[in-house]
Amino acid sequence: MADKPQTPLLDTIHSPADLRTLAQEQLPQLADELRAEMIDAVSVTGGHLGAGLGVVELTVALHAVFDTPHDRIIFDVGHQAYPHKILTGRRDRIRTLRQKDGLSGFTRRAESEYDPFGAGHSSTSISAGLGMAVASQQLGVKRNVVAVIGDGAMSAGMAYEAMNNAGAMDARLIVILNDNDMSIAPPTGALRTYLARLVSGPVYRGTREAAKTIVHKLPPFLHEPARRTEEFARSFFTGGTLFEELGFYYVGPIDGHNLEHLVPILENVRDAGEGPILVHVVTRKGKGYAPAENSADKYHGVSRFNVITGAQAKAPSNAPSYTSVFASSLIQEAEADDRIVAVTAAMPTGTGLDKFEELFPSRIFDVGIAEQHAVTFAAGMASEGLKPFCAIYSTFLQRAYDQVIHDVAIQGLPVRFAIDRAGYVGADGPTHAGNYDNAYLGAVPGMVLMAAGDEAELRHMVATAAAYDRGPIAFRYPRGEGMGVDMPARGEILPIGKGRILRQGGGSVAILSYGTRLSEVLAAADKLVALGLNPTIADARFMKPLDQDLIARLAQTHDVMLTAEEGGLGGFGSHVASFLASNGLLDGKLRFRPLMIPDTFVEHATQDDMYAAAGLDRAGIVTAALGALGYDEAAMKAALAKA
Amino acid sequence: MADKPQTPLLDTIHSPADLRTLAQEQLPQLADELRAEMIDAVSVTGGHLGAGLGVVELTVALHAVFDTPHDRIIFDVGHQAYPHKILTGRRDRIRTLRQKDGLSGFTRRAESEYDPFGAGHSSTSISAGLGMAVASQQLGVKRNVVAVIGDGAMSAGMAYEAMNNAGAMDARLIVILNDNDMSIAPPTGALRTYLARLVSGPVYRGTREAAKTIVHKLPPFLHEPARRTEEFARSFFTGGTLFEELGFYYVGPIDGHNLEHLVPILENVRDAGEGPILVHVVTRKGKGYAPAENSADKYHGVSRFNVITGAQAKAPSNAPSYTSVFASSLIQEAEADDRIVAVTAAMPTGTGLDKFEELFPSRIFDVGIAEQHAVTFAAGMASEGLKPFCAIYSTFLQRAYDQVIHDVAIQGLPVRFAIDRAGYVGADGPTHAGNYDNAYLGAVPGMVLMAAGDEAELRHMVATAAAYDRGPIAFRYPRGEGMGVDMPARGEILPIGKGRILRQGGGSVAILSYGTRLSEVLAAADKLVALGLNPTIADARFMKPLDQDLIARLAQTHDVMLTAEEGGLGGFGSHVASFLASNGLLDGKLRFRPLMIPDTFVEHATQDDMYAAAGLDRAGIVTAALGALGYDEAAMKAALAKA
Repeated sequence: MADKPQTPLLDTIHSPADLRTLAQEQLPQLADELRAEMIDAVSVTGGHLGAGLGVVELTVALHAVFDTPHDRIIFDVGHQAYPHKILTGRRDRIRTLRQKDGLSGFTRRAESEYDPFGAGHSSTSISAGLGMAVASQQLGVKRNVVAVIGDGAMSAGMAYEAMNNAGAMDARLIVILNDNDMSIAPPTGALRTYLARLVSGPVYRGTREAAKTIVHKLPPFLHEPARRTEEFARSFFTGGTLFEELGFYYVGPIDGHNLEHLVPILENVRDAGEGPILVHVVTRKGKGYAPAENSADKYHGVSRFNVITGAQAKAPSNAPSYTSVFASSLIQEAEADDRIVAVTAAMPTGTGLDKFEELFPSRIFDVGIAEQHAVTFAAGMASEGLKPFCAIYSTFLQRAYDQVIHDVAIQGLPVRFAIDRAGYVGADGPTHAGNYDNAYLGAVPGMVLMAAGDEAELRHMVATAAAYDRGPIAFRYPRGEGMGVDMPARGEILPIGKGRILRQGGGSVAILSYGTRLSEVLAAADKLVALGLNPTIADARFMKPLDQDLIARLAQTHDVMLTAEEGGLGGFGSHVASFLASNGLLDGKLRFRPLMIPDTFVEHATQDDMYAAAGLDRAGIVTAALGALGYDEAAMKAALAKA
Repeated sequence: MADKPQTPLLDTIHSPADLRTLAQEQLPQLADELRAEMIDAVSVTGGHLGAGLGVVELTVALHAVFDTPHDRIIFDVGHQAYPHKILTGRRDRIRTLRQKDGLSGFTRRAESEYDPFGAGHSSTSISAGLGMAVASQQLGVKRNVVAVIGDGAMSAGMAYEAMNNAGAMDARLIVILNDNDMSIAPPTGALRTYLARLVSGPVYRGTREAAKTIVHKLPPFLHEPARRTEEFARSFFTGGTLFEELGFYYVGPIDGHNLEHLVPILENVRDAGEGPILVHVVTRKGKGYAPAENSADKYHGVSRFNVITGAQAKAPSNAPSYTSVFASSLIQEAEADDRIVAVTAAMPTGTGLDKFEELFPSRIFDVGIAEQHAVTFAAGMASEGLKPFCAIYSTFLQRAYDQVIHDVAIQGLPVRFAIDRAGYVGADGPTHAGNYDNAYLGAVPGMVLMAAGDEAELRHMVATAAAYDRGPIAFRYPRGEGMGVDMPARGEILPIGKGRILRQGGGSVAILSYGTRLSEVLAAADKLVALGLNPTIADARFMKPLDQDLIARLAQTHDVMLTAEEGGLGGFGSHVASFLASNGLLDGKLRFRPLMIPDTFVEHATQDDMYAAAGLDRAGIVTAALGALGYDEAAMKAALAKA
């Protein structure tokens, strides 16, 4: 579209106000430059590429038409907001994306006044936008509120709740449905089919022609806002009855890469009257970058890559990822038991279940971004005798907390929860932190909770979950690679509620690990040995039920006892503390120290950095042990220098 | 319809199989008897009346048409299932409803094979039903699965998630949309408007006539399942495009009190082919009992009542309910600050916000059964400078856990959470237990968490929340009446994170209360004094941030320290234990005992019974204190006899 690229425009854009001084004819060139800049930046930092590429023109059009930051633009799942960041004063830092102390990979209120609402999880933008629109009404401020949401995110219940609520109110809310036919996973669900029908119909193609005609041939029409609102917008009503029935005025579908269509239509929408409007925009994820367009996942999330070839730099791996061990272990179990089925909420690749799907296409259910439904759907299957494995990241399982309690645990239904991305997640930062499941699942009666100490343990836990049929059972494991331990050919069924001693030491220090801090705990043990101590090291394996015998024994035979976990307050350490206190095991000389993730939100960094800052690396664990043993500062320093 | 009631039919029905031996002409009489029986039973027990009355005919029709229990009928929010219970072998115990050791007020898998899925929270039935339908497919079992769901429950996101998923599958799922135009609160939302349009249209009335015609005049037609499936059912398609677009075959609307319509249509639906079907049935909540029909809330939940007059027996109250104190306190604050707004998820009466609505109709937002949206909608309002109070029961806030973390806490937005029904809830049983919020909210960084020790404290906490603008803040309070303390004219702003000493004692026992166990703690203190002890009693007021100074002082100056709360593992006691341990305050002679709700699901009973069983009444607290002081069994017995 930018036939004759002239002097670079992007360099002149320091804020959206600069953008709004450009002529409409210049916008395609700006979009092209913006796209190139974004590709180059992500090639350096890694991150979410496909989503941002799909909304380059839309982002330009939105800032051209709306008076940001006074008008609010909320990008659902902020990972599509990289172009927005470049246009809103953050271009100079765009190559710090997702790096420690750099820009967040999502929108963040604290980062810019142009980010009115932060988002890392999907489907929140309509609710937030409606709240803003209503607040502006109440406060007597005139402003536009625009929520930009993908079709994948529309499958989540909270998006529907918000639509249903907004559709019955007269608030001025504009929802841009960014229909890119591709969220993270291939699209699923009836809504998707419906959208496809709208887009494929002859009306859509006709309307595109009509839009061109109107925009090119009838410029004076654009100068009559009152008439154009009624008539021009109506001309785009092509049958979005589902949205109309939910109380929205429907406009679309519109080619989301054509600024000549986007700008006048968004102007019309901006100048329309009361009530919620849905603008159905069709885009291509990965648009304008051939390697992304040609990739199955449209380069949803990428490592650093070569811009010319698209080849991604992957660090050589020392061990299989926990995700892949989960997948291969579940496949083993599923081969032996055809009652095993798998459920994912739009994350077949992220959870590793794409491998399962290749082998058992009729035994996997991708329900879309719909964690609540995923869990209760699994409960229904369990009630009929299937063995569902529900694979959901720790952070997303928060969406289904009530369903875990009400539909699974109260009924004692044997749903298996595979909880990936437990603990700190690194570059995705606080929105995706899997820090809370130890506490929120720990509070639920009747749950069996496990955490894998290493990848071999994970294999055992998958086998244990497959075999356990007396109620709900969950196992958690982190993002990233395993420890490189020898893998058992098949998983063994672990005795429920029993931990294991890895190193039987003397009576000074016992460290009870829960989860993959185990490697750091073992490294800390080596350091303690080097200091002449003889620590006992145990792997709890189970947080629920607690191995009370093991814990009591450790407590009764050591001066100091530590717990270590990849979770925060209210979790494993808190459960152990409550058990010890309730049973009088803290009445005597024992010095008990629960080591846990601190009670703060931590910005994105590497996982190692985050755990070091939390005192959950080997140095932190040694320091805690020595502190509890009574080492003063000087002795501690001397000891640490020695170890 | 039962023109000539003859010998009672209900007495002959011991199971649905008996029902299925009746002629269709006898069903209206059975329905009438069933309705009378249900009214009489609930007049004795109290409970949910309106919902069950609305589905008497539907329940009869379902059991007449479907082969229960082989076919699965799932009643969404089980409180509409009283007629179902009477018909499925539980009539002899129907007058034990909601009583200790009696029938549950909801469906329960453990109670009957006719209850394939338990439910107390709404909107779970479609997900569960889809899971069952899919499982039956996988297991090669032919069965029908029917989910009966109200229009109010349809506003919840998880119902939509399930529809969206089911609509893209070929599973045999039948959804009966019980459109009674009245969930607990007056209906809200765009879906409601849409349904009203369907029902009010001329087509509906015409179809009712058509149904009669077909049923009465064309009996042979009913004997041709293949044809009638295609043609008869199609004749009822009157424009449910929203559901059709979600992939469901739509049948309706149908008069849900007319068995001559219901039975043949359900037979048709039963015999239809693959794929999900939605049957839109129109009923009246409270149908057939004039006092209920004429009441605004259709006798949704009632106390014991006089069948003739409908007058409900309310125990004389000694003190205002916590709910009403919350409402009056919020009104006071709202009068002083017009930025205060209130949000409810379909519970204006239950939360007391109906009073607020009378005074500030433009400042309350009832978003429907949509807790996820409610919280993020409030977050959006807070981001623009309003002061939203989000009033949600503890058990329902579980539905919005991710939104509390992701949309509110991470962004530090000052949303105020009024958490009613904290702790045990009595007759509603385990599905509604508010036992978990101390743990699940306690795990969230940046939350300020309070629990009211009595109704005056609640008033202070409302004022404190109104004044606090630095981030999210929540206060919890139980179901039921206050303690009858003097009420302050206005709430005072409490210092954040500071508790209070109520009784400064000697060095033996300190009890730190969090929430309304306070009255029992004070009563226990009296008993301890009678035993010659001199306990210190403190009210923590805040669980987060903890009053570390107060707790350290209590720990350092007493031999024994107890905590008491209306919550379970991972909550207040666990936080205190973690704090004490992490700071070495348990290294010495202190004997610390956290008293909490046990880690089990507890069946319905009175709240007092439940707390006594949990050891959280005065006797249990005294016992725990004496035990920690080292009293052996004999000494304890002697002491308790004395106190």
